[in-house]
Amino acid sequence: MKLYDSGRSPNPRRVRIFLAEKGLSVPLVPVDLGKLEQRDGAYLAVNPRGRTPALELDDGEVITESLAICRYFEELHPEPPLFGTGPLGRARVETWQRRIELELLFPVMHVFRHTHPHMAALENPQVPAWAEANRPRVFDFLAFLDGHLRTRDFVADSFSVADITGPYTIDLMKPARLAVPEELAEVRRWHHLIAERPSAKA
Amino acid sequence: MKLYDSGRSPNPRRVRIFLAEKGLSVPLVPVDLGKLEQRDGAYLAVNPRGRTPALELDDGEVITESLAICRYFEELHPEPPLFGTGPLGRARVETWQRRIELELLFPVMHVFRHTHPHMAALENPQVPAWAEANRPRVFDFLAFLDGHLRTRDFVADSFSVADITGPYTIDLMKPARLAVPEELAEVRRWHHLIAERPSAKA
Repeated sequence: MKLYDSGRSPNPRRVRIFLAEKGLSVPLVPVDLGKLEQRDGAYLAVNPRGRTPALELDDGEVITESLAICRYFEELHPEPPLFGTGPLGRARVETWQRRIELELLFPVMHVFRHTHPHMAALENPQVPAWAEANRPRVFDFLAFLDGHLRTRDFVADSFSVADITGPYTIDLMKPARLAVPEELAEVRRWHHLIAERPSAKA
Repeated sequence: MKLYDSGRSPNPRRVRIFLAEKGLSVPLVPVDLGKLEQRDGAYLAVNPRGRTPALELDDGEVITESLAICRYFEELHPEPPLFGTGPLGRARVETWQRRIELELLFPVMHVFRHTHPHMAALENPQVPAWAEANRPRVFDFLAFLDGHLRTRDFVADSFSVADITGPYTIDLMKPARLAVPEELAEVRRWHHLIAERPSAKA
């Protein structure tokens, strides 16, 4: 088994953090996005969609999409559970995982990809008006999330994949030139709490 | 248990089809998006994010996000399995479910929401240039999907949630004024095959 990884890209980092939380180590194969290696024939033979990460199994089958890879490791190595416990616990993780993706990660990504000069090759055409439309959505959701975190350390019952997606999205806010407002103390506390976990360095 | 549902909206339909495939029936509570009822105080008390569907359990807890609701029913009623079987089978469903969402559903939704006059209240501001940027992505992914379907009736090992998300997205192409190209015979066959299932009327 090997994981095609691109160090600077956000999605592979999500999988590396997940693996670190599981205490797992998988051989990494670097794909240099700076050189657009993800669009080379060699990599397109692995993942024809030209996206990283991708997990190649020993028989050559490839699993793509970060969350599909994370779920696969959750099945193979259930402890510690990172997608929740029991039907309701898993539903709570999934509700928040989806909310954070749809209402925070994707808006932040849109701001980043449609404003940052380095993204011009990947996001073609860049649409600055679309970045602007997403900016207030980021702050609206962060305020909602702050209220939710007022009574808990993690978004669901215990540390989960949603607590990976959320803080890692907040890290992405910096290159997108977005900042968590000072008054959102709970979001800031949560971000710091998770940044102190050893997995954050993965 | 009751499901807040808005008949004309795409996400609630995804859950209704899922329930029909499971042979399950859940009392529906209508939320009229035409009257923007999803933004009324009464509904915001159910789902503060103002989105449908939402599943309210008997103790008052609410699960939101279509896929979180579908996964919850999969846990309670595992047969027939609609998220795949076994770690690898489930990974295949998840890979395709994600690909179809990220590379087909979301681009189609962007075209629809940023061009259709009826969407002006929900998608504010509409950014026509963003709709245009998404149009070629729809056709690029459909061509890829057509190749994948050449050797199979369903995107993974058997009918799954990805075969709900995909054809339902193709139904959404019509109001977005997008059409599956004539030459993509496999996508058309797949769409017809699934439209003939009783669940398509849900």
